[in-house]
Amino acid sequence: MSTGRAEAFSDGVFAVAITVLVFGLLPIGTRTLDATVLLQAWPQYFAYVVSFLTIGIMWMNHHTILAHVARVDRPLLVINLLLLMGIVAIPFPTALVAEHLRDSGGKAATVTYGLVMIAISAGFAALWVYVATHAVALGAALPPEALRSSMTGWTLGGVAYVAGTLIAWFVSAVAGMVIFGALAVYYLFEHLPSPAEEAPGSSAPEPGP
Amino acid sequence: MSTGRAEAFSDGVFAVAITVLVFGLLPIGTRTLDATVLLQAWPQYFAYVVSFLTIGIMWMNHHTILAHVARVDRPLLVINLLLLMGIVAIPFPTALVAEHLRDSGGKAATVTYGLVMIAISAGFAALWVYVATHAVALGAALPPEALRSSMTGWTLGGVAYVAGTLIAWFVSAVAGMVIFGALAVYYLFEHLPSPAEEAPGSSAPEPGP
Amino acid sequence: MSTGRAEAFSDGVFAVAITVLVFGLLPIGTRTLDATVLLQAWPQYFAYVVSFLTIGIMWMNHHTILAHVARVDRPLLVINLLLLMGIVAIPFPTALVAEHLRDSGGKAATVTYGLVMIAISAGFAALWVYVATHAVALGAALPPEALRSSMTGWTLGGVAYVAGTLIAWFVSAVAGMVIFGALAVYYLFEHLPSPAEEAPGSSAPEPGP
Amino acid sequence: MSTGRAEAFSDGVFAVAITVLVFGLLPIGTRTLDATVLLQAWPQYFAYVVSFLTIGIMWMNHHTILAHVARVDRPLLVINLLLLMGIVAIPFPTALVAEHLRDSGGKAATVTYGLVMIAISAGFAALWVYVATHAVALGAALPPEALRSSMTGWTLGGVAYVAGTLIAWFVSAVAGMVIFGALAVYYLFEHLPSPAEEAPGSSAPEPGP
Repeated sequence: MSTGRAEAFSDGVFAVAITVLVFGLLPIGTRTLDATVLLQAWPQYFAYVVSFLTIGIMWMNHHTILAHVARVDRPLLVINLLLLMGIVAIPFPTALVAEHLRDSGGKAATVTYGLVMIAISAGFAALWVYVATHAVALGAALPPEALRSSMTGWTLGGVAYVAGTLIAWFVSAVAGMVIFGALAVYYLFEHLPSPAEEAPGSSAPEPGP
Repeated sequence: MSTGRAEAFSDGVFAVAITVLVFGLLPIGTRTLDATVLLQAWPQYFAYVVSFLTIGIMWMNHHTILAHVARVDRPLLVINLLLLMGIVAIPFPTALVAEHLRDSGGKAATVTYGLVMIAISAGFAALWVYVATHAVALGAALPPEALRSSMTGWTLGGVAYVAGTLIAWFVSAVAGMVIFGALAVYYLFEHLPSPAEEAPGSSAPEPGP
Repeated sequence: MSTGRAEAFSDGVFAVAITVLVFGLLPIGTRTLDATVLLQAWPQYFAYVVSFLTIGIMWMNHHTILAHVARVDRPLLVINLLLLMGIVAIPFPTALVAEHLRDSGGKAATVTYGLVMIAISAGFAALWVYVATHAVALGAALPPEALRSSMTGWTLGGVAYVAGTLIAWFVSAVAGMVIFGALAVYYLFEHLPSPAEEAPGSSAPEPGP
Repeated sequence: MSTGRAEAFSDGVFAVAITVLVFGLLPIGTRTLDATVLLQAWPQYFAYVVSFLTIGIMWMNHHTILAHVARVDRPLLVINLLLLMGIVAIPFPTALVAEHLRDSGGKAATVTYGLVMIAISAGFAALWVYVATHAVALGAALPPEALRSSMTGWTLGGVAYVAGTLIAWFVSAVAGMVIFGALAVYYLFEHLPSPAEEAPGSSAPEPGP
């Protein structure tokens, strides 16, 4: 199968999952509405922003990985599906955090958030390792050694999420969420190591000089 | 009509349907949150995983079928629409199972789940039979005999779901869901018989040797 | 603007709107679940099937219209947006019908359903009239006279929905919904008049003779 | 990265966000249903129409901007992500307005609506400024001066939304929403200044003379 339809399906899932986050903003509902009510709902906005940026970065990383290959095989599709299963689940811990960050359930909510992030990090690592170790069969443009040299970088994200989860558990739920947010902002500007800044064939032809 | 837009629409429906499953995870809501509450919600996670893998495999099978033809006609679009009507419904029995697997409604929920799966299996069988019997008109690359030889394989899925539904009814709801989950895992690795492992024209050109 | 991105956006909206219908199936929720409860919820399934087929046919009709033109201009995009505004609203009257078909609110629900359908029919008529009267500017492959000759057919759908709405109001809500369902089934097999059965350039090249 | 996948992802987000607006129409629910109940829910329909047209226009504007460039870089993707974060949030203030326009919370709801619109306007201005100041690197077909000359126009939208928000706060919530609606209708017909009415390469080849 060409990467085209796998990317299109994945893009659709990413687009829906990121938009579903808005449902974490909705249930203010039946109460009297004024500025105080809106401001006190800050954990909703905070969780929304952290998860939105996180899914956005994950979409970019996903594209970076698949841009290296010309086609996908069955094991890659299965790994991709498991990865998407984690990404689609993100609105669940986001809703938990939005509702419980300030009450006694904050720790359980934030640790759940961290566990989902760790699972997703493992999925990304698996996807990259599979691509790097099956470069020729997948029609990768770069030599396998170049791809393998980037493997370490793709596992660092997981370590940072383990740290954030431990801090959420032993220090405070808010501190944990701040770390998850800081990670998202950090990755917005400092992207994961890639053997080629731009994979061949992924850039459109320039219309002018 | 070319298969392109029919595939794009179907992919969109698959992507939304698989993402909507997250709503089965959300309604923990207003209760006090702690680790016990989260662990006791295991039927939610179980139903989510089974349905996510199932829709994922159905998406792959859908692609496998449509990759054999160059264009679609009205009857094929109608069969495809009926098939999608079943797939979009999956979050409904999934939510029933998530909520009732451990109470007296578990059997009704799991049997409903199985009935939806049987209907979808019938839809896939109809799609494959139509493609195989209209191969020339649809611009299929393979001869009709090759396509017809795979028909038996596409009906086996339905039989397995009938068995799972009967077990859910006469033995136990959890046993039925375990079978549905095992079927999903099995098909992840053992895909349905296809006359050609890769349909011509569906793989992107290799950028290098 | 080429039709490509307008079609892709419209397809996305159609795909999400048709999948959102599943939310009309979900709120069985907290009650005790058994076969009786599931069977008594038949208006939910009925409304789901009618709306699913209806949106599916509307997607096909939408494609049929846009396949005639090579590009879209601002007025066409605006008409298209107004049409989509009606299609996205369909889950609203669908939910009304699902909840109230058997109680005193059935008439109000079904009439609302019919009014939305009439508005959508007007949108389709407007889209077709605009295409037919701006054929050259939109790069249509067929001569304007051929396109104009199909205008009558595109307005008949609206008349049938007016009839169904009147029957829902003066006879019974169930009768109205049965008519809306029959219309969907009828259009599945008998599609709207099109000057060319297949617009040039919309079929993929045949891989064989 | 080519603009293709960034546009596809953005289109998906726009399509889901605009469809999610229907959820603001749903919660009529359990009450007795009759024509009076349906008519009294007019703020729901009003908020739905205003937000639907607004997201629709934003989708067109988004396309207009990205049609000027041949590829996207990391900063542009980040700006785009922040812009989408605002657009995905629109159903939230829409739901607030739908529920509270006629009670004491109307002002808070409409001001929140305006603040989200102002944030989105800032996002669009940032996107256009970035494209205009990095025209060569992004492979823009037009000279940077031509792109820069349109910058003023892209900031006017923000000013109008500031005015609407102030009126919502100091005059009335309904007046504010009427202004937001009028802005959407105005932009449907009077689109933002664009250096080239049609970006080169974005129109499909004409099939005939």
